[in-house]
Amino acid sequence: MPDGRGNFRRGILWHTVMGMSDGEAITTHASRATLAEVAALARVSVATVSKVLNGRAGVSAETRSRVEALLNDRNYNRRSTPQATASLIEVLCFEIDSPFGAAAIASIERVAREQQMGMVVSASDDDHLPAAGWVDGVLRRQPLGIILVAAQLESKDMQRLRSRGIPMVMIDPYGSPASDAPSIGSADWNGGFLATQHLIGLGHTDIAIITGPDSMMASTARLSGYRAALDAAHLPVRSEYIRSGRFHHADGVTGGRELLALPEPPTAIFATSDLHALGVYEAVRSLGKTIPGDVSVVGYDDLAIAKWAGPPLTTIRVPLATMAEQATHLVTRLRDEPELAFSRVELATSLVVRESTAPPRG
Amino acid sequence: MPDGRGNFRRGILWHTVMGMSDGEAITTHASRATLAEVAALARVSVATVSKVLNGRAGVSAETRSRVEALLNDRNYNRRSTPQATASLIEVLCFEIDSPFGAAAIASIERVAREQQMGMVVSASDDDHLPAAGWVDGVLRRQPLGIILVAAQLESKDMQRLRSRGIPMVMIDPYGSPASDAPSIGSADWNGGFLATQHLIGLGHTDIAIITGPDSMMASTARLSGYRAALDAAHLPVRSEYIRSGRFHHADGVTGGRELLALPEPPTAIFATSDLHALGVYEAVRSLGKTIPGDVSVVGYDDLAIAKWAGPPLTTIRVPLATMAEQATHLVTRLRDEPELAFSRVELATSLVVRESTAPPRG
Repeated sequence: MPDGRGNFRRGILWHTVMGMSDGEAITTHASRATLAEVAALARVSVATVSKVLNGRAGVSAETRSRVEALLNDRNYNRRSTPQATASLIEVLCFEIDSPFGAAAIASIERVAREQQMGMVVSASDDDHLPAAGWVDGVLRRQPLGIILVAAQLESKDMQRLRSRGIPMVMIDPYGSPASDAPSIGSADWNGGFLATQHLIGLGHTDIAIITGPDSMMASTARLSGYRAALDAAHLPVRSEYIRSGRFHHADGVTGGRELLALPEPPTAIFATSDLHALGVYEAVRSLGKTIPGDVSVVGYDDLAIAKWAGPPLTTIRVPLATMAEQATHLVTRLRDEPELAFSRVELATSLVVRESTAPPRG
Repeated sequence: MPDGRGNFRRGILWHTVMGMSDGEAITTHASRATLAEVAALARVSVATVSKVLNGRAGVSAETRSRVEALLNDRNYNRRSTPQATASLIEVLCFEIDSPFGAAAIASIERVAREQQMGMVVSASDDDHLPAAGWVDGVLRRQPLGIILVAAQLESKDMQRLRSRGIPMVMIDPYGSPASDAPSIGSADWNGGFLATQHLIGLGHTDIAIITGPDSMMASTARLSGYRAALDAAHLPVRSEYIRSGRFHHADGVTGGRELLALPEPPTAIFATSDLHALGVYEAVRSLGKTIPGDVSVVGYDDLAIAKWAGPPLTTIRVPLATMAEQATHLVTRLRDEPELAFSRVELATSLVVRESTAPPRG
């Protein structure tokens, strides 16, 4: 196993999105407008400006964005509310009891504890969105910052939190990470390429994939890496070898059974998540076949369960602990260094070879 | 698989510890002493009484307990501090990224969310104790209540929190639960008995056990249930068949290897935790043997990983979600119903038969 930590640090890629006027305005600490000035310019009452500033309801979207723009133009400093000293960090996480969610939360907690902060955890729903009332709760609690783990916010919620100056960082963002909140992800395309290249290197030519949801950038990038590795080896991409799931165990069972029932079944399956891979294990077992004798399997994530599987799972390591640590450090710095708000960090992934992959049967 | 939930509800046992003078004093809302009266009686300053009341440092243990006793005698109402409206619930959890910890946290969060409360999560250290500064953080945050998950507090910390009237409930308490904080556990002795009885029923006579730490009541109770089931079947308890661990995967690997290397290896192993069981799986695999062909294995907990194992693991189901839900409901009621503070709830466990157990080879 490679020395992961060292590699990730060297593998950090900073993509700083430049030229966003919002971000630049915030970095110049020039004259500050008063609420009354902004109200006069926006032709609304001071109460309305206050509502926008405090993220409260009862303002039309049009008025809210007009007032927001003026506040930004006038560089009104909304970052230092007196209550923002509660020393809380807020986490919204998809599937908090999944191995992935639990590992992220544990890493955030470690950093929060070191910095004498309390960590408030909320679960998102199946669509990766917060429950009704979550934003109200956050505004009451006045955390130092918010970390979204594989979760997302509707733009009206994002706007309410922004107008209170609560910084936000996304880990492994759901959907497309090309938004204006900083995000910390990992090299998904590269991971997909590495996994497929490993199987090709062992001599496999019939390699299937079970992807995650189309709506997730991470999922699309892993599939693209798979295609690129096949292309590079002049191997065809066969549509019957591409199945999809939602990164759950059950999807691996279904996808695995379908693939192994094909007239020409694959000799290797890139499962794109460890839970998918364990589902494939069950499909293979239920057919009386063995791993890696009959079929090689590669997972993705390198959760603890990967090394406990029978046989231990070859997988792509996502440096989740490092991602969570960086996100926590970043969100606590954003209040004082808002110029970091347009950064995208992508940490390197690496291949961990265990016992679920071998050359195909001659 | 039995209808677990229905069974647990029917299986609830309430042990209410009666005759605790403290508890009874709190339930009678009689005359209240002022701080000055208590200070005079204790022959200390009002500032000192205030320190005790607010859980601050700088008071000797002797003075603190004298003032505490007077406050209790005089029935001083410390339960309704004005700050206690932050709508936070505080969780201190052992190993928050273990499958057990993550499942408990997810269940607490679900109830907290329904009740519009935020959940602050902190990890305990390896000795199941909070990090330095945790109590200070809790006192700053003023939560509605605290839930300890397989964690414990030193008595001075417990006293500081009590003196601020912050209610506390323990889930699956570490060590002996016979303290004066309410606790919610499950029927460990019964679980140990059921697991062993199942193996005996299949025809096994050489049944080993890998226990958890001696210091945990849950662990001792499971071992005791194992002994009782062997006794009931007139089978000997063989000391070489008893190994111990700390409920980690690695302990199952070590214990499993040692047991299978015995001159007369067991034909069945009761692993007393699902992680121990997965470790035994690895030991069996590494020796080129199979489950349940060569050896039957029973786990404990019924975490998600149990059904994903190869073969799916026969185990004892601990109704962790129900335990966490009951703890959350209980802790929010304690402020208004302090008579509940001396209750111990024990939920029923049940056997879940999957594919890791079979009759021994003839």
